[in-house]
Amino acid sequence: MNRFSMPVPDDFHVHLRRGGMLHTVLPHTTGMFGRALVMPNTIPAIVTAEDVRRYRREIMAASPERFIPLMTIKLLNGRTTPEVVLQAREEGAVAAKLYPVGVTTNAEDGVRDAEALAPVFGAMESAGMVLCLHGEKPDTFCLEREAAFLPALVAIAGAFPNLKIVLEHVTTAAAVDTVAGLTSNVAATITAHHLLLTLDDVVGGALNPHAFCKPVPKTPSDREALWRVIEDGNPKFFLGTDSAPHPISSKECPAGCAGIFAAPVAMPALVTAFDRRSLLKRLPDFAARFGADFYGLQQNEGEAVFVRRPWTVPSRYKDVVPFLAGTQIEWSFLR
Amino acid sequence: MNRFSMPVPDDFHVHLRRGGMLHTVLPHTTGMFGRALVMPNTIPAIVTAEDVRRYRREIMAASPERFIPLMTIKLLNGRTTPEVVLQAREEGAVAAKLYPVGVTTNAEDGVRDAEALAPVFGAMESAGMVLCLHGEKPDTFCLEREAAFLPALVAIAGAFPNLKIVLEHVTTAAAVDTVAGLTSNVAATITAHHLLLTLDDVVGGALNPHAFCKPVPKTPSDREALWRVIEDGNPKFFLGTDSAPHPISSKECPAGCAGIFAAPVAMPALVTAFDRRSLLKRLPDFAARFGADFYGLQQNEGEAVFVRRPWTVPSRYKDVVPFLAGTQIEWSFLR
Repeated sequence: MNRFSMPVPDDFHVHLRRGGMLHTVLPHTTGMFGRALVMPNTIPAIVTAEDVRRYRREIMAASPERFIPLMTIKLLNGRTTPEVVLQAREEGAVAAKLYPVGVTTNAEDGVRDAEALAPVFGAMESAGMVLCLHGEKPDTFCLEREAAFLPALVAIAGAFPNLKIVLEHVTTAAAVDTVAGLTSNVAATITAHHLLLTLDDVVGGALNPHAFCKPVPKTPSDREALWRVIEDGNPKFFLGTDSAPHPISSKECPAGCAGIFAAPVAMPALVTAFDRRSLLKRLPDFAARFGADFYGLQQNEGEAVFVRRPWTVPSRYKDVVPFLAGTQIEWSFLR
Repeated sequence: MNRFSMPVPDDFHVHLRRGGMLHTVLPHTTGMFGRALVMPNTIPAIVTAEDVRRYRREIMAASPERFIPLMTIKLLNGRTTPEVVLQAREEGAVAAKLYPVGVTTNAEDGVRDAEALAPVFGAMESAGMVLCLHGEKPDTFCLEREAAFLPALVAIAGAFPNLKIVLEHVTTAAAVDTVAGLTSNVAATITAHHLLLTLDDVVGGALNPHAFCKPVPKTPSDREALWRVIEDGNPKFFLGTDSAPHPISSKECPAGCAGIFAAPVAMPALVTAFDRRSLLKRLPDFAARFGADFYGLQQNEGEAVFVRRPWTVPSRYKDVVPFLAGTQIEWSFLR
């Protein structure tokens, strides 16, 4: 097979940033995906209905008409109330994101006290709004942060049995097992890069700042656990690229930012990887159906077409180095 | 106690490089240490007696008279014969270093077939020459490379029961336990940075290329295993800083070199760390006696003196960023 077509995919986790960076990266998301869940940890953060309105306007002004940004807000201790969440919901926000304090880019103002947000979770549960979790416990050894967060996930899921929850960018067998074992209203996103990388790609050879992200890629056996739920066709696991651009000067420096700019590369890389594992039949569900189902959306109309034709990933898009920069991918995106 | 004096220490593992870089870094080793075991993985490598003669001359021409470089050669399949080793020994080389192929900086020509070196090991055993091992198995997941190498160490130690062997820069509980369990002719070096860092310092916050080294720092419990043998006063474990300078352009880049420039910082940082753990009484043995004993050398004459006075590590030494650059250390080196 030298041609692979599937429904237009969705990206249930993307960082579009604002201003100049937004204009650099947005076309790569809108050109590949029908919809994208837009993360709210911009500077300043997207916290209120008014923030959602303005940010969506900025995105839509730079997008083709058929692209639909799915908006989110950032949960903040002391600022986010049930009223704030419900107003954002009315403005169209489909999810709210919880970043534990300090765990990733722009999380210095993250949540210290998740229990204090209980009334907010209750309002989200009633309103059918999705809770997205950056599932890492602060002040924990990097390889153990995700596993250490899981009891908090289980506690929230237990206290709010009808709340839709997404554990974002899972990287470990422990996280996959926990999500798989919870009820159907708890799901997880998986990135393309966590399906392709291990810690070896960051620190195993030369140090690669462009493969550095949070959560950090883990062991080969953790990576295989991610592939296993895809192979099983488990509908709780779907694509969120976590495409997170940083200018090269913030990556190749003494204190490199976490984040991989995956938007233009994730789908061709996934087609190639799924093909090598003889799993192409699982890709349409993973990248174009399970996420839409979970969020209560129709599948996108139209087709995405890939061809088996080598594509060398550009070394840069303006001042951003993409995922797999300079390497050759077996499949290309046609349209 | 605000003043700490001890015999002048030795560094049983240092990279002095050649040419301009040698002149940048050498004073920081000669100013702190009485002797240093000089690694042979320069470009070109130090392989023969003639290489040893020339490299020592280059070092001594730039050193104060009291400093003694302890020379080594690099073992290469196909080039290193018993005769080559014995000639180097006559020229004063005290050790030969085995780098498995590809495991670290300048190891592209490393050893693929350690068994083929058996006649060389036999000659070294007879001549009383030390075998230094970079103890990582190639083509293994980064966190498992050291443990995966240990069977090779055990095999060499078993086949050459009188060969003095040093497992360099150990980082794991597994390595510490293995070395501790072998006979007294098998020892290990420990770096200052592996006593202070874990993987968190490389990838746990922002990415820090200046904390990136091989073997990569491991888990908190691995680090505690290193401290335990020091606390025990186990004479098989002694200081080798593995000070390994790279120009900033080779660190803050898309493919950062492994290596930490520790020469000026290792001893003040160790005094501070040993003091915090109430282990200062163990530092003279660790840094000035056990290594000399193992190599059959007298202890250095003279004293090194440290004072409890904050020292802010310079952000650079010419174009090299040192270990702990810009941070404040509680103890300073006086003389």
